[in-house]
Amino acid sequence: MESIGQGRLVVLSGPAGSGKGRVLETLFSKRSDYKYSVSATTRSPRPGENDGVNYNFITRKEFENYIRNGQMLEYAEYCGNFYGTPKDFVEDEIKKGINVILEIEVIGAMQIRKKFPSAVLIFITPPDYKKLEERLRGRATESEEVIKGRLLRARDEIILASEYDYIITNHDNREDEAADDIIAAVRAHGLRACEHEDLNVKFFG
Amino acid sequence: MESIGQGRLVVLSGPAGSGKGRVLETLFSKRSDYKYSVSATTRSPRPGENDGVNYNFITRKEFENYIRNGQMLEYAEYCGNFYGTPKDFVEDEIKKGINVILEIEVIGAMQIRKKFPSAVLIFITPPDYKKLEERLRGRATESEEVIKGRLLRARDEIILASEYDYIITNHDNREDEAADDIIAAVRAHGLRACEHEDLNVKFFG
Repeated sequence: MESIGQGRLVVLSGPAGSGKGRVLETLFSKRSDYKYSVSATTRSPRPGENDGVNYNFITRKEFENYIRNGQMLEYAEYCGNFYGTPKDFVEDEIKKGINVILEIEVIGAMQIRKKFPSAVLIFITPPDYKKLEERLRGRATESEEVIKGRLLRARDEIILASEYDYIITNHDNREDEAADDIIAAVRAHGLRACEHEDLNVKFFG
Repeated sequence: MESIGQGRLVVLSGPAGSGKGRVLETLFSKRSDYKYSVSATTRSPRPGENDGVNYNFITRKEFENYIRNGQMLEYAEYCGNFYGTPKDFVEDEIKKGINVILEIEVIGAMQIRKKFPSAVLIFITPPDYKKLEERLRGRATESEEVIKGRLLRARDEIILASEYDYIITNHDNREDEAADDIIAAVRAHGLRACEHEDLNVKFFG
C-alpha cells in the first residue's frame, strides 16, 4: 500500500492569489505532524532570504550530483536555475509518520504523482476570478503588467487543477477552514477502498 | 454537482462485530449536522423496539404504495419482510445541510450508488479476523451456530467492502477515531477534483 511509510507526501499547488502561504502557516500552527519540505535551488539568495528556511541554496554542481545520484524527488529548471526537492528529508520524515508538504508547481506535481502514486495532490484556489484579481491588485507594489501576467498564469494553473486529487477553495479570512480541508483530505485519502485491497487477505488468508 | 443539495447522503455498512453502532453513537454525540435515517419495515416490532426510533413500522400496503410512488430511496426484502429508506426525510435533511446516515446492507448501498452518485459509501470493519471472532463470541448469549453463521456472513460482506468509497477500521475502544474518520471522509469527498469540473467555467466563463 504505502510505498514510502507511515506519513504522507502532500503536494500543494495554487496560483498567486490563492493565499496558500497563509493556509500553510495556519496548518503548521495547528498540527505538529505536518512539515514543510524546503526546496533546493541553484539561484542566489535574494535579500532577506535565509538558507535552509526559504530554500537550500546549493551550487549547480551539487544540484547536478543530486540529480545524477537519484536524490531529487522532482526538479525543474526555470530561467536558467534549478529548483528541486531533495529526497532524504522527505523520506526520513515520512518514515517518522510526518506528512510532508511539497509546495511545487504542476510539472513537479506530475513527476511526484508518477514516482509516488500514494502522494496526495491538493490544489488551492481563490473563490472566483473577481476575488483573484482583487487579491493580486491588493499587493499595491506591483505594476499593471506584472498583475496581468499573474492573472494569465493563474488561468493556466487553474486549468490544470483537475489533475489534482482535491481542490480546496480558500475564502477570505477562512484559512482555518482551508487548513482543516487539507487535514481531512490527507486523512480520507488513506481510507479510500483502493488502499485496502489486502483486506480480504488480512481476514481470510 | 450535488444532485440533492448541501448535505451528503452517507451510506454506512459493516458486519456484526464491526462495532458500527457505537461508532455512530459517538459520531452523533460529536456532530449535530449528522442525522440517522430511520428505516421503514413491514415486520412487527420486537419487544423493546419503538416506532420511529428503531424503525418506522408500516403495513405491507403502505410499503407497496411507497415503492409504487417512487418514495423509497432503496429497499430490499428479507425473510418475507420489506425494509427500506423513505425518501422524504433524507431529502429534507440534506437540503438543510445535514449529512444523513443510512445504515444499510450492500444491496441497498449499490442501489443508492446508482441513484445518487454523490452519496459517500463507507464500510466499517473490525481490525482483523481474530478480533471479529472475539467480538462476536463476546456476546455470550448466542449459540455457536449463530456465531458461525455471523462469521460466514461477515466474510461475504467484507469481500464486498471494495465496492465502497472508504474503508474504516474500528479498533477496540477507539470509536472516537473511527467517527473522526467518517467526518474526514465526508468532508474530503466534496473536495475531490471530480466534483469541481466547473472550476474553469467559474473562473473564465
